[in-house]
Amino acid sequence: MKKRFLLLWMLPLSLFAQQKNVVQYVNPLIGTQRMGHTFPGATVPFGMVQLSPDTDTIPYEMNGKYNPDVYKYCAGYQYDDKTIVGFSHTHFSGTGHSDLGDFLVMPTVGALQLNPGIATDTKTGFRSAFSHANEKAEAGYYKVKLDDDNITAELTATTRTGFHQYTFPKTNDAHIILDLMHGIYNYEDKDAWTFVRVENDTLVTGYRQTAGWARTRTVYFAMTFSKPFKEYGCKDFSKKQVYRGFWGKFNQTKNFPDLAGKQLRMFFNFNTEEGEKIKVKMALSSVSTEGALLNLRTEAPNWDFEETKAAAQAAWNTELAKINIEASEAEKQNFYTALYHAFLGPTVYMDVDRKYKGLDQNVHTAANFTNYTTFSLWDTYRALHPFFNIIQPTRNGDMVNSMLAHYDQSVLKMLPIWSHYSNDNWCMSGYHSVSVIADAILKGNTSFDAKHALEACVTTATHSNYEGIGSYVEKGFIPDEKLGTSASTTLEYAYDDWCIAQAANKLGRTDLYETFSKRAGSYKNIFDANVGFMRARKEDGSFKNDFDALSTHGQGFIEGNTWNYSFFVPQDPEGLITLMGGKKKFSARLDTLFTMYLPDKYFAETEDITRDGIIGTYVHGNEPAHHVAYLYNFAGQPWKTQERVRMILKHQYKPAPDGLGGNDDCGQMSAWYLFSTLGFYPVAPGATVYQLGSPAINKAVLQLENKNTFTVEAINQSDKNVYVQKVVLNGKQLEQPAITHEDIMKGGTLTFYMTDKPKK
Amino acid sequence: MKKRFLLLWMLPLSLFAQQKNVVQYVNPLIGTQRMGHTFPGATVPFGMVQLSPDTDTIPYEMNGKYNPDVYKYCAGYQYDDKTIVGFSHTHFSGTGHSDLGDFLVMPTVGALQLNPGIATDTKTGFRSAFSHANEKAEAGYYKVKLDDDNITAELTATTRTGFHQYTFPKTNDAHIILDLMHGIYNYEDKDAWTFVRVENDTLVTGYRQTAGWARTRTVYFAMTFSKPFKEYGCKDFSKKQVYRGFWGKFNQTKNFPDLAGKQLRMFFNFNTEEGEKIKVKMALSSVSTEGALLNLRTEAPNWDFEETKAAAQAAWNTELAKINIEASEAEKQNFYTALYHAFLGPTVYMDVDRKYKGLDQNVHTAANFTNYTTFSLWDTYRALHPFFNIIQPTRNGDMVNSMLAHYDQSVLKMLPIWSHYSNDNWCMSGYHSVSVIADAILKGNTSFDAKHALEACVTTATHSNYEGIGSYVEKGFIPDEKLGTSASTTLEYAYDDWCIAQAANKLGRTDLYETFSKRAGSYKNIFDANVGFMRARKEDGSFKNDFDALSTHGQGFIEGNTWNYSFFVPQDPEGLITLMGGKKKFSARLDTLFTMYLPDKYFAETEDITRDGIIGTYVHGNEPAHHVAYLYNFAGQPWKTQERVRMILKHQYKPAPDGLGGNDDCGQMSAWYLFSTLGFYPVAPGATVYQLGSPAINKAVLQLENKNTFTVEAINQSDKNVYVQKVVLNGKQLEQPAITHEDIMKGGTLTFYMTDKPKK
Repeated sequence: MKKRFLLLWMLPLSLFAQQKNVVQYVNPLIGTQRMGHTFPGATVPFGMVQLSPDTDTIPYEMNGKYNPDVYKYCAGYQYDDKTIVGFSHTHFSGTGHSDLGDFLVMPTVGALQLNPGIATDTKTGFRSAFSHANEKAEAGYYKVKLDDDNITAELTATTRTGFHQYTFPKTNDAHIILDLMHGIYNYEDKDAWTFVRVENDTLVTGYRQTAGWARTRTVYFAMTFSKPFKEYGCKDFSKKQVYRGFWGKFNQTKNFPDLAGKQLRMFFNFNTEEGEKIKVKMALSSVSTEGALLNLRTEAPNWDFEETKAAAQAAWNTELAKINIEASEAEKQNFYTALYHAFLGPTVYMDVDRKYKGLDQNVHTAANFTNYTTFSLWDTYRALHPFFNIIQPTRNGDMVNSMLAHYDQSVLKMLPIWSHYSNDNWCMSGYHSVSVIADAILKGNTSFDAKHALEACVTTATHSNYEGIGSYVEKGFIPDEKLGTSASTTLEYAYDDWCIAQAANKLGRTDLYETFSKRAGSYKNIFDANVGFMRARKEDGSFKNDFDALSTHGQGFIEGNTWNYSFFVPQDPEGLITLMGGKKKFSARLDTLFTMYLPDKYFAETEDITRDGIIGTYVHGNEPAHHVAYLYNFAGQPWKTQERVRMILKHQYKPAPDGLGGNDDCGQMSAWYLFSTLGFYPVAPGATVYQLGSPAINKAVLQLENKNTFTVEAINQSDKNVYVQKVVLNGKQLEQPAITHEDIMKGGTLTFYMTDKPKK
Repeated sequence: MKKRFLLLWMLPLSLFAQQKNVVQYVNPLIGTQRMGHTFPGATVPFGMVQLSPDTDTIPYEMNGKYNPDVYKYCAGYQYDDKTIVGFSHTHFSGTGHSDLGDFLVMPTVGALQLNPGIATDTKTGFRSAFSHANEKAEAGYYKVKLDDDNITAELTATTRTGFHQYTFPKTNDAHIILDLMHGIYNYEDKDAWTFVRVENDTLVTGYRQTAGWARTRTVYFAMTFSKPFKEYGCKDFSKKQVYRGFWGKFNQTKNFPDLAGKQLRMFFNFNTEEGEKIKVKMALSSVSTEGALLNLRTEAPNWDFEETKAAAQAAWNTELAKINIEASEAEKQNFYTALYHAFLGPTVYMDVDRKYKGLDQNVHTAANFTNYTTFSLWDTYRALHPFFNIIQPTRNGDMVNSMLAHYDQSVLKMLPIWSHYSNDNWCMSGYHSVSVIADAILKGNTSFDAKHALEACVTTATHSNYEGIGSYVEKGFIPDEKLGTSASTTLEYAYDDWCIAQAANKLGRTDLYETFSKRAGSYKNIFDANVGFMRARKEDGSFKNDFDALSTHGQGFIEGNTWNYSFFVPQDPEGLITLMGGKKKFSARLDTLFTMYLPDKYFAETEDITRDGIIGTYVHGNEPAHHVAYLYNFAGQPWKTQERVRMILKHQYKPAPDGLGGNDDCGQMSAWYLFSTLGFYPVAPGATVYQLGSPAINKAVLQLENKNTFTVEAINQSDKNVYVQKVVLNGKQLEQPAITHEDIMKGGTLTFYMTDKPKK
């Protein structure tokens, strides 16, 4: 039994040895400074647990007012901070709003402190100073020295379990704090309920229910210690404690195992020898503490931290080695960290027995697929899901299955907009699930019921009460009176409708194809030929006054001005070019976009990005223009696509903590990087064509799930040689700067011949 | 299929026709005035749903202070009130603290009002005036005319479903309000979370989670309407609404099906014709909305209100007809209403698929028993569970199984003290589960694992951190410094320990028998021979100062002064008699107890009872002295037992709304009545002997589950002929005023010959 067990665990390790070690190039600290909003902690690919240090706890509101500092802490960690509050188990990667931060664990020694304290004086609480010199972040592993108490903290994870290893000094006053009220984007009253049982002197179970970005979210846990605690206790920090009644019979502050309340913090006390390691494992579940315990016992059955770390890193290597590149060390760091960030989510959302909590709060079983959550679809439909259709097709099919389960459980009968933990937080515009679904259907990656998926798309897109859909269908655009983002949402709906049309066409539903193709042309309805831009329209059909093409605010757009959004017709670049007066005018406009000077007052309006995140008024740090650099291809100037793409790659992605110019947005920024670095990009997901750009590596070999291999070579590419002289696919020179999905999936070699001269 | 279905439903109806109709004698209004705390609404025997009118909504606190009026509303209904707020689905019967009141439904017409309004002006809200002239309360059926809006409301129930039938006037403004924040004993912040889905235009599902007497309680529901509502809506009444974020995209006040928050009220609008009936069914579950829906569809599959009512009343008749009596009409009302009240709980607590939520908040399956909740054990161990051991032995065995499941799930490893809805509220003292378990074991009613049950008793009784158990075991009494109720709790533990000893003896555990027999003698340790009373002792062994034998407060007792509590040695009356100086002194003291004048200042201290509830200083409205009238038997003066019992029966139980002198306490007061009316009483549950009193009916036939029949006859009994001349059991005259459990269960006839002269 023992032997078999060992062999099982050795398996990924031996694979690891055979494969190229690419994990070494991952630097999870990339993007942790300023706007990247990534987290540096430990997780496995698509893991349910993201165990990561939080450097501060900022409430969403202070004295009833929005506290803008909360935004910095979307991922819980800011590189510039000097202190760590503790290590919590759930994080989003790269978002621009947030939630989670469940179950913060923090080791301390000395006098027991149950408040985190303030950053400027760590003696005021359980937080500790740390320095990056003593910090190490790897894929699946994180280590830091907590200076205040001379404790070394190490973290690793399985899919559903966080594994902590704390090395203590000698003391009779060692504590492990479990903060059950810590959270990211904490509101007053966010903690609806917390329930804890100390099952024995090494096992604690419970759950926390919050009302935040996810309105009704419960996370269950099972937490186990490698060493019995000598005593433990709890404090209720809620302003007004709930009725205690006859519970007053018990002293609940110390060694009392049956706890519940709104805002609880616990402590567990130990004696430790110098250098003694106390380990903690915490498994999560969306179903029950029983589910969490099952996850814990199945995934992390022993106390071998090194073995778990090795397994986590082997899992990463397996995923990351699906693409092997030849490039500079710096580029490898960029590339594999982008791949790492792309593989952080969507996250697995079911227990090892396949059970999960659905939107109806009932327990469901994902019998035939892996259920995922964390769908930041406004971001990720653009490049991340198309990237998955190439390199993670099985997962992408399961993601669509998860979206369909969401739809089936939704009492609103809507596909997810931005869903996490059995909830939709409704963030951002459009109904971009349909893009993900159409892209999968068009690319033949349908492990799901495609007919049902099409029905879900149509039902979602005809939900007349949702964000102006009713008016949009009736008038062909959303009137400004109905919606603050009337113009950008009209453009997004038009693209999404084109996606539905493509899926309908593929599935032989000509009726739907016609209906939604017509809707897809709605973008034309908000083009103001007089000013030459997309522009919000009013109920009476007139255009909204006070037009300002540079402003993001009050113009009917979101996260982009009309300079950017006027290019948002990915489904019909040719039509847009016509609308804008032909290829010449169109490419001149693109030139201006990338080169114009944006006055500071407009930058101040721009959300989520640093000054460096803007090129001209092209905003790479937000998503709406992600396809725009590739539009030169349609205007007959592919060399400008090549030039712009390389410029963006060079300026927006650096192997450093501040290397990301904007939020990574659950991997979308990384996916843009990955496609562009490989030399092609899906301008319109839902189409099977990719526009060619300028590969930024010398060679990349993609190991596809179908066992085929697709190789990209870039002969003579360098920082100067960014222009493409010719492209050869399997020995045949391409006439257009485009390839198809089939070209990739059947395997082969795409060779770019690079030069320093644009080929006009 | 249809036919088979009908036959299935007809079965209880045909039985009903064959059996004597005793349901007619039940008057659920008995006890609804003043202190009885019963509810008049519709339920089936031991039903999970108690659908009943609530006449007011009084918060537990007003402006941060306890609001004493809340106490009146333990059952939601007070007979003296002139208005009804609505009909809610869960109620305790006869408790002296409370909770529940889930899911209040109220029909209205005219302008929509979402506040209940005030009782003195029903126009201020959705409540309505009503009068008892238009009210009808039967077992399983309740009807009332709501005067404000001329609506007739009728209620019936299945085990897990409440069935409403509302007869409306003609209007285009008919509303059915669903108040999801209504509750009994509502505290600020009691509503932890509420979640609702409007699944379609006739079905609503959801749950409400509260933090009240039950600290972590969630009740799920599925609610269906016989007619589609034309529109619906919701309002959030919480002081500070939770973060709404992107949910602001939706207008959530009207026709929005996806709702959650802390304090919600909903409305459903209809057009109605004159006399049109709109019916509502609401099923509950502790597990999930899925479970509630399963309960609904299994138990109440059609819209035939009359059929459901007939089935409910047939179920009642089946249970009530287990005892047929010959008595006056008034006495039949008393008797069958007492039997009805005795059969209201404990309540079934599992779905039709046997699933229920356990104390660990995980879902469990009661594979081999019916799971029950609502165990008010400090009250009900005395007579209710012993009564069940005779007339409901299967249910009582399942109740013990439920208590053992509670123990198994308890992280404190304790049998229930006062448990409801997967929680223990820890109300009152002692660990009287052990009495219920011992009584069942001694009487051979063990469908449960008796060994495991004994282990649970011992573990509970050795929980040294619970209410002075540690000191009690160490010193033989609980010191006054440790516990405000040190004296009464010492007495209760001593009795409970005797129960454990009896069970241990029966199961051959001599070691435990000896240990707990010794502990059972602890009552002697707090008897102060100087004053002749039980008396609180201090850590140093001395008795507590400022002794006042009449006072209930500050003397170390709860719900009784030492005049009452000094008789609390049910396990050893002989020992107590010796302690008190022999039979003569003992019976003289009993005489004084029943006849002395209690000054008003002491009455003011007495909880839960009316002035009429006190005879001398004997307090029948509280439980500690329930066995005391029977102690004359041990002092050789059985005629005084006979006299006192009849006096208590006459004065404390009347067939009128104010007929109960104190809280019915989940059936304990009724069970005392039932035993005493039948002529015998279990002075010490855990013993198999019953003391004989004075039967107050002419004849009673008990149909036992084992098919035997036990008949009690009282020859010549009348209000005057309360004394027993002789008693004959199966033709053989008894020498002692006692019978055994076996005497009853093997069937036979017990004949009392009554006279107006005491037989000294």
